Amino acid sequence: MTRYEKVAAVLRERIEHGIYRPGDRLPSIRAVCQEMEVSISTAQEAYRQLMDATLIESRPKSGYFVLPGRAPSVLPSISRPAQRPLDISQWDQVLELVATQRDDNRLLLGRGVPNLEYASLKPLSKILGGLHRSADLHGFNYDKLSGSPELRQQVAKLAVASGCLLHPDDILITTGCQEALSIALRLLTQPGDVVAVDSPSFYGTMQILKASGLKALEIPTDPQTGISLEALELALEQWPIRAIQVTPTFNNPLGYTMPPARKRALVQLAQRFDVAIIEDDIYGDLSFTQPRPPTIKSFDDDGRVLLCSGFSKTLGPGLRVGWMAPGRYRDQALHMKYVSTGASATLPQRAVAEFVAKGHYERHLRVAIRQYQRQRDVMIGWVQRYFPEGTGISYPQGSFLLWVELPAAVDCVRLNERLARHNVHVAPGSLFSASGKFRQCLRLNYAFTLTPAIETAVRTVGELAGEMVGESRASLV
Amino acid sequence: MTRYEKVAAVLRERIEHGIYRPGDRLPSIRAVCQEMEVSISTAQEAYRQLMDATLIESRPKSGYFVLPGRAPSVLPSISRPAQRPLDISQWDQVLELVATQRDDNRLLLGRGVPNLEYASLKPLSKILGGLHRSADLHGFNYDKLSGSPELRQQVAKLAVASGCLLHPDDILITTGCQEALSIALRLLTQPGDVVAVDSPSFYGTMQILKASGLKALEIPTDPQTGISLEALELALEQWPIRAIQVTPTFNNPLGYTMPPARKRALVQLAQRFDVAIIEDDIYGDLSFTQPRPPTIKSFDDDGRVLLCSGFSKTLGPGLRVGWMAPGRYRDQALHMKYVSTGASATLPQRAVAEFVAKGHYERHLRVAIRQYQRQRDVMIGWVQRYFPEGTGISYPQGSFLLWVELPAAVDCVRLNERLARHNVHVAPGSLFSASGKFRQCLRLNYAFTLTPAIETAVRTVGELAGEMVGESRASLV
Ligand SMILES: Cc1ncc(COP(=O)(O)O)c(C=O)c1O
Ligand SMILES: Cc1ncc(COP(=O)(O)O)c(C=O)c1O
Repeated sequence: MTRYEKVAAVLRERIEHGIYRPGDRLPSIRAVCQEMEVSISTAQEAYRQLMDATLIESRPKSGYFVLPGRAPSVLPSISRPAQRPLDISQWDQVLELVATQRDDNRLLLGRGVPNLEYASLKPLSKILGGLHRSADLHGFNYDKLSGSPELRQQVAKLAVASGCLLHPDDILITTGCQEALSIALRLLTQPGDVVAVDSPSFYGTMQILKASGLKALEIPTDPQTGISLEALELALEQWPIRAIQVTPTFNNPLGYTMPPARKRALVQLAQRFDVAIIEDDIYGDLSFTQPRPPTIKSFDDDGRVLLCSGFSKTLGPGLRVGWMAPGRYRDQALHMKYVSTGASATLPQRAVAEFVAKGHYERHLRVAIRQYQRQRDVMIGWVQRYFPEGTGISYPQGSFLLWVELPAAVDCVRLNERLARHNVHVAPGSLFSASGKFRQCLRLNYAFTLTPAIETAVRTVGELAGEMVGESRASLV
Repeated sequence: MTRYEKVAAVLRERIEHGIYRPGDRLPSIRAVCQEMEVSISTAQEAYRQLMDATLIESRPKSGYFVLPGRAPSVLPSISRPAQRPLDISQWDQVLELVATQRDDNRLLLGRGVPNLEYASLKPLSKILGGLHRSADLHGFNYDKLSGSPELRQQVAKLAVASGCLLHPDDILITTGCQEALSIALRLLTQPGDVVAVDSPSFYGTMQILKASGLKALEIPTDPQTGISLEALELALEQWPIRAIQVTPTFNNPLGYTMPPARKRALVQLAQRFDVAIIEDDIYGDLSFTQPRPPTIKSFDDDGRVLLCSGFSKTLGPGLRVGWMAPGRYRDQALHMKYVSTGASATLPQRAVAEFVAKGHYERHLRVAIRQYQRQRDVMIGWVQRYFPEGTGISYPQGSFLLWVELPAAVDCVRLNERLARHNVHVAPGSLFSASGKFRQCLRLNYAFTLTPAIETAVRTVGELAGEMVGESRASLV
């Protein structure tokens, strides 16, 4: 981080923690210089950054003021899923989404891919290119089954920021985070078992449940604090739950981050009922505030948390470099890894290790995070402008996915059909539920460089959704 | 193929089919020139190649003669596995083998890795380097779930040589052949199901059975013609077999290739009992004779064969590029693929596609095949020289793995313990059996460039094995 970014981060944190509240006047430039021992230009640059992020504004002759937070006014409602274990369906819809990742001339507003155009990613191309060109015998050979020692070491170092003290041997490199999740679920369960999940929930995990013949018990989930511990406790009493699967940090799709105290309480609950927790942290490094939020794993004192993550959302999913820290299940995880794909591809692991070791990863994160934070606000602005009244919007503090809850009259699967004519596609909310809930919701990606073409597409989504609202009113008359 | 290689291939085939038998005099150079319409130097070069392969010898003033085939005199005996479904164990031994693939200073004589040092592999490094360096947005993005269209097209083209007419859409790219096998087994079975396997059988597949809670029914397998169709038929009548899993071409570890007629008969048997066949063809392209043997899949007229293969044994396992042709199970296979690892890594697929499309694959195969064939004979010579009397040796017509059956007194797991002091390691036969059979067998790799150090290692293996035979005799006295 540069000096001014550090200053901005400190101020941002104070705003986010309510130390400076909306409408408050911020300390003067001079006061900041004194407090933080920086130059005037550094303090000015920090304030400029906070203005870019629309967190504060400058009022001529009066100073800098905290802007009203957008989040609370527009959040979607708490989920009320079916209260019994369900089989998973929705594969057709998931397939439609994932099968169109490439060579599709539609604008895929809903996809889960980071921005791959930032120059800060260039060194990775270079490193990869160099490694592959000079491939010696080792480069084409199998790597270690648990993954390249170099990469595991870097992952262990990175995990410190999330509160985890991991030894490289606690880590297993996987073929993307998907394989980590798949391994975790397979080693914990037998067909017919029940897994408690947050709701909505990442469709990739849901499909693992389907493939393994598992049942999902969707737990009501608060759009600000995550899975309801109260509902989960009741469920644990009532059902033979084998594992709890959650994405507690920058949740996909809801965007919330569970507060640290609730993460800790979740571990305690799991201990009381002796269940394992599968924690998906794939977006955790994309935090708009520093330090990044702690993982559930950081509160795990008896190895029951299987932490799953990877570099798909920070560097690029086409690399297929993921990892897991399976805690007390390491031996079973290693066996599942062998069975699933054998050792992971050799050179991509080394390239990522080098990219991280040389500081490129941190630099790239800074670039991406700053852009995503700005773009979140731009995208929210568009949704507020173009979507029908009564639309709820999430307010993520990291990552690049927005959850939008439209009026009940809107069915986003049907909306997608209408959008096809305009070459636009969103991720319908029903993808994220075993019971096909959330049909009036959709996921938007704001990692794109937000061009006028994207604004037009978002506007089209809003307008067609508005039409659906209108039609439903008309049919009621 | 060059002209002389074509001539040599024709002659070799006639020898292998017994048209010219051991001791027979071959046609003169001139006769060959006339028959095949080639020049004298071409015919001479062809004969030289056959001499290099120790298939024929030249006797001064008399001409060229077929050498006695080595194979029949030294083949290991037919397997007699337990005749009931078994749970799999041996994970510890497998782990020991696979965990030592890298950074081990022992000489791993038993590993399953091809030679990665041939210059004909260089263009792949170049292509990979170029692609990664110039990575555009697509390179780091998810690829299509079923795999890169370019690669699927090349795979479809290659499959023609094995008698398969596949459409690129019939093919699914996987993360190594291991993932293909894993997907195939998972989509066909439920925990507790019985799978018929050849015996000995590749340990990677056995471990999939273990992880999925499946039982292996090991079918007696002939070291020359493969799985016994008669025994299989009895088993199909007796047990509820859900799938038949075989490696019928250049079998790992036994080395045999099922004759085409038996491959066809296997399909008919599967049809009669309505079972699926999982065919592992990962060594199929490494055939010492041309054309390469047909796959079982080539006889499949109702889509019940799931063909699994990949580039790990031809180009390098560290790439993790495999593929499958799942026949009528395509939809389920695609779902399992998504669940298992999502889309496969993007750029390695494109690199392999380009390598094949530009003819480098064929060129590289020619180089590797010629070396492997020579090295097979060298390795067989060493085993004959250094191993105890009564040792059986396979005689593979492709690939790079030799199966050695020692006198019953030798236990290769214990042999490995003694070899540790000499920094040498073999693959013990018990890895390849659910019932822990084949303890007196071991697998050797002859893909290495065969240096004096390797000869010394092989000799050490033979001598220590000989000691074990001696000890057992002594204990009987
Ligand atoms: C929450 C979550 N977990 C896991 C994944 C899969 O990641 P990978 O591409 O590394 O397999 C995704 C990607 O969409 C995701 O959103
Ligand atoms: C018969 C057989 N099938 C499959 C595999 C696994 O291949 P891959 O490394 O492509 O997963 C091997 C490797 O040892 C093998 O011998």
